[in-house]
Amino acid sequence: MKSIITISREFGSGGRTIGKLVAERLGYQFYDRELVNKVAERSGFSPEFIEEGGEYASAKSSLLFAMATAGQYSADGLSMHDRLYIEQTRFIEELAEQGKCVIVGRCADYILRDNKDCLHVFIHADMASRAKRIVERYGEKDKSPEKRLAEKDQKRRVYYKNYTGRNWGQAQNYDLCLNSGVLGEEACVELIVAACK
Amino acid sequence: MKSIITISREFGSGGRTIGKLVAERLGYQFYDRELVNKVAERSGFSPEFIEEGGEYASAKSSLLFAMATAGQYSADGLSMHDRLYIEQTRFIEELAEQGKCVIVGRCADYILRDNKDCLHVFIHADMASRAKRIVERYGEKDKSPEKRLAEKDQKRRVYYKNYTGRNWGQAQNYDLCLNSGVLGEEACVELIVAACK
Repeated sequence: MKSIITISREFGSGGRTIGKLVAERLGYQFYDRELVNKVAERSGFSPEFIEEGGEYASAKSSLLFAMATAGQYSADGLSMHDRLYIEQTRFIEELAEQGKCVIVGRCADYILRDNKDCLHVFIHADMASRAKRIVERYGEKDKSPEKRLAEKDQKRRVYYKNYTGRNWGQAQNYDLCLNSGVLGEEACVELIVAACK
Repeated sequence: MKSIITISREFGSGGRTIGKLVAERLGYQFYDRELVNKVAERSGFSPEFIEEGGEYASAKSSLLFAMATAGQYSADGLSMHDRLYIEQTRFIEELAEQGKCVIVGRCADYILRDNKDCLHVFIHADMASRAKRIVERYGEKDKSPEKRLAEKDQKRRVYYKNYTGRNWGQAQNYDLCLNSGVLGEEACVELIVAACK
């Protein structure tokens, strides 16, 4: 029985909800918002900065990402984004030591890649299902949902590449990848729980 | 209940065996060697050419692939590799019409990408598990198993990219991706059968 589950997910795929249901089913702690709050408390960064800066690059390419964040240095000489990444890494490593938890996002799959007690999950869905979901959840905006999703995907991909050197969504980096659009939320929960055992 | 399962797999991941067990469990037809024989019968190509040329590029880059196959034209003006791809595509589309089958490899995931009655599966494993498996199955060779696997991976990646334009092993192209090295053969069979329902 794996005692740590990391869940990476495309925005709008329902990965967060699926992770929460898996945690409930297994009686594990669930870390998403809780992780943000804890890192905020320890680092002094605002929850808003952590929410956005802890998973998303701020511009469209790694070069632009580096340029955009270049001026933002904290007292120890690291960029604000790098310092946040280090804080998140430390906290995720501590969570893993405690075990029995589900951790959503934040490169936890990469940070815990050598931990044999982990099940690494990636959840994705087709554009239409994700667009429907974000409109239901966050409402309509000026930009089309497809455009919002494409931007989120791009920022997350750049952030992930920048800190891990890996390609986001490459199956070989996970133990289990699920298409929630085809399989449905409930089946995804069942499959993760089954794979965990 | 999905009536067609496509299985793409890394060489040495046990994907073929897993596919066969899934087919037995569901009472579905299994197409791997059978597909090669049928395409041989219809096209006049030798089973050996189909086995190698129907999934693997013959050199290390798409350019070299194009160059290496450039001289090999069949009577209708298509390259031998392209003609084989077309024969395979036709046959796979016919199989899908009949339904209740498991099809291993041969870009079936791409060929049947718009078929709603399909479950598309990708099976992979870490290098060490795959190396162990191919030595048990095919014995030691002059080249190390790691080198043999790296070459097979590269050739399959180039072949797939050449005919589909996609990156091989990208999670978003499948409904279910499984790490057989971590999950084990039997669990993979169970998860595929469960996802199919």
